[in-house]
Amino acid sequence: MQSKKLLFTPGPLTTSQTVKEAMLEDMGSRDHAFMKAVKEIRTELLGLAQVSKEEGYECVLMQGSGTFGIESVISSIIKKENKLLVLANGAYGERIVKMAVIHHLNHMVLRFSEDEIVTPEAVEIFLNSNMEVTHVACIHSETTTGLFNPIEAIGAIIKKHNAIFIVDAMSSFGGVEMDMKQMHIDLLVSSSNKCIEGVPGFAFVLCKKTELEKAKDQARSLSLDLYQQWTGLESNGQFRFTPPTLSIMAFRQALKELKQEGGIKSREQRYKTNKKILDNGMAELGFKQYLRPEIQGHIITSFLYPDDPNFNFERFYNKLNNRGFVIYPGKLGKTDAFRIGNIGQIFPDDVKALVQAIKEVLEEEKISTLS
Amino acid sequence: MQSKKLLFTPGPLTTSQTVKEAMLEDMGSRDHAFMKAVKEIRTELLGLAQVSKEEGYECVLMQGSGTFGIESVISSIIKKENKLLVLANGAYGERIVKMAVIHHLNHMVLRFSEDEIVTPEAVEIFLNSNMEVTHVACIHSETTTGLFNPIEAIGAIIKKHNAIFIVDAMSSFGGVEMDMKQMHIDLLVSSSNKCIEGVPGFAFVLCKKTELEKAKDQARSLSLDLYQQWTGLESNGQFRFTPPTLSIMAFRQALKELKQEGGIKSREQRYKTNKKILDNGMAELGFKQYLRPEIQGHIITSFLYPDDPNFNFERFYNKLNNRGFVIYPGKLGKTDAFRIGNIGQIFPDDVKALVQAIKEVLEEEKISTLS
Repeated sequence: MQSKKLLFTPGPLTTSQTVKEAMLEDMGSRDHAFMKAVKEIRTELLGLAQVSKEEGYECVLMQGSGTFGIESVISSIIKKENKLLVLANGAYGERIVKMAVIHHLNHMVLRFSEDEIVTPEAVEIFLNSNMEVTHVACIHSETTTGLFNPIEAIGAIIKKHNAIFIVDAMSSFGGVEMDMKQMHIDLLVSSSNKCIEGVPGFAFVLCKKTELEKAKDQARSLSLDLYQQWTGLESNGQFRFTPPTLSIMAFRQALKELKQEGGIKSREQRYKTNKKILDNGMAELGFKQYLRPEIQGHIITSFLYPDDPNFNFERFYNKLNNRGFVIYPGKLGKTDAFRIGNIGQIFPDDVKALVQAIKEVLEEEKISTLS
Repeated sequence: MQSKKLLFTPGPLTTSQTVKEAMLEDMGSRDHAFMKAVKEIRTELLGLAQVSKEEGYECVLMQGSGTFGIESVISSIIKKENKLLVLANGAYGERIVKMAVIHHLNHMVLRFSEDEIVTPEAVEIFLNSNMEVTHVACIHSETTTGLFNPIEAIGAIIKKHNAIFIVDAMSSFGGVEMDMKQMHIDLLVSSSNKCIEGVPGFAFVLCKKTELEKAKDQARSLSLDLYQQWTGLESNGQFRFTPPTLSIMAFRQALKELKQEGGIKSREQRYKTNKKILDNGMAELGFKQYLRPEIQGHIITSFLYPDDPNFNFERFYNKLNNRGFVIYPGKLGKTDAFRIGNIGQIFPDDVKALVQAIKEVLEEEKISTLS
């Protein structure tokens, strides 16, 4: 077995040994122990969003990656007579636009530049002149860059217009305190391998029951039918189709460990500490960030390539990888950058070790970060 | 941790300890080690179907359950101007019909009773009077009952009509020797948690490259776009969207262990031995099978409920479960039955132990199997 690597990525992440060990027991998909785990997960996820079944909220698990979860929402919730507005300032917003196109949804896109947040003011002006919009989708933590869109303020505008608010909180949920009601979110999507610190295998949707009920017979595929997936889970506690049993058992353990850490509040604090150490360390090494600090979130950061011909990302990546540190390539439209995440089972000392490794690689490769 | 259970189900299955242990290392989705595993898996799966890339065949992995894989084929391959014929004699054939309906495909259904195989003769007669059929879909091992449809003979008829043959070999691939060319199969779908004995998390599609190429811009969803998934894997070795990294590492190990066992031929032999022991043991206990033996496959068997009011499936299931044996409920339209699978890391002694446990439960519950 290769030596242990630390993943400084937006996910799949570094997970605890005990989370991975929860997968060492075979589990039948109709077994009571498994169905109990599914039920507990669904209840606890609602709690993490500060809502409950009693208040009219539901949690649906969906096999596949986070994108599968987003598409299950977009393709199940938006009816023929509805109109979706996508607020886009990065690749993940654009991905929702692609879904709207492929499913022939009535939709509009309000685009912002990748290095700017979605502003509530622009959303308000847009909605004022497009009163027919019924649903609005926005990314919380745009992993493309690492910025946080101001979901609560955007949500307040959307509610003034009585539209339904769909939030892709893929890379932030579990690592940022969120109150679905306070943030005016009707449907929130995230996945198993992000800030809850589970392994990949499924997405989850937290949403108002009333919105789910409207989705009956609306879905545009069998697999991604959010309504049917929900009624399946409700009727007998089972998935309609084979669930990723072991990923779910790992997630059950991950939720326990989140609680042990002190909940989302404590985890957010750890991630923020990681971020601060990364920021200081990388600044000392001379790296520049793509975003201005006011809009930068604490999940993942984009660093500009050093302006030195000695810098080759492949070599830089591989040398860090050989030292046990996995960083992440960039995804910006026009700017060359790489990304470093602060989430997962990553602690301040790990970030310090990463910064030290980067320093060594810069020296080895004779890369100057002065420009 | 609860004591180890043996799963006598159609999947998720009992897997080896070493397969599960392959998930104990965190793995980045863009890491070279991971991409190497993906590449090896894609090549080896083609080899198991006795085809290769050089011969014009491709392998595409798709996140989610087997159904997601089937839907990626059905919703990506069948064009507006095509006509799909679904050959159905169980719940899995009917599931493909549901997909055809939801995606508004031109389609027809040729139905057979659940206790009968799809006959090549009936298919020929049907195709002779429906020359416009361009694609035919059929289930190999109908998990609903456990029967095997005669794929090779059906394939020969389909090829006479120049139609494309799509085979759902979900529960059989890896447990039955199959030669895609000889069986006239153009697209074959199976999943990670069946006879290759991996854990759940993804499906795989083995198919002719020419059919994939025709699927460009045809898909009816973003997530399940088979063509884009293929070109993504081909272009940089990566999944378009977060892959189930650890399920894939487990699958890589499962393929190694399949080779160590002596390949599909040896595994098929083990499963057939399991089946024989099950058949004999259950017959001795007085249980009757739903299917006549000539059409029964060696993957999973449907047993009729004993005709005794003392028999309660929930209690029967739970008592076996408490003894460490997980069996499977039935899925028949009109007949009460339960199912027992022979696949996964299940060996002759395990089957004997299961039969013994069933015997004990019959006695404990005072169930008579005489009717």
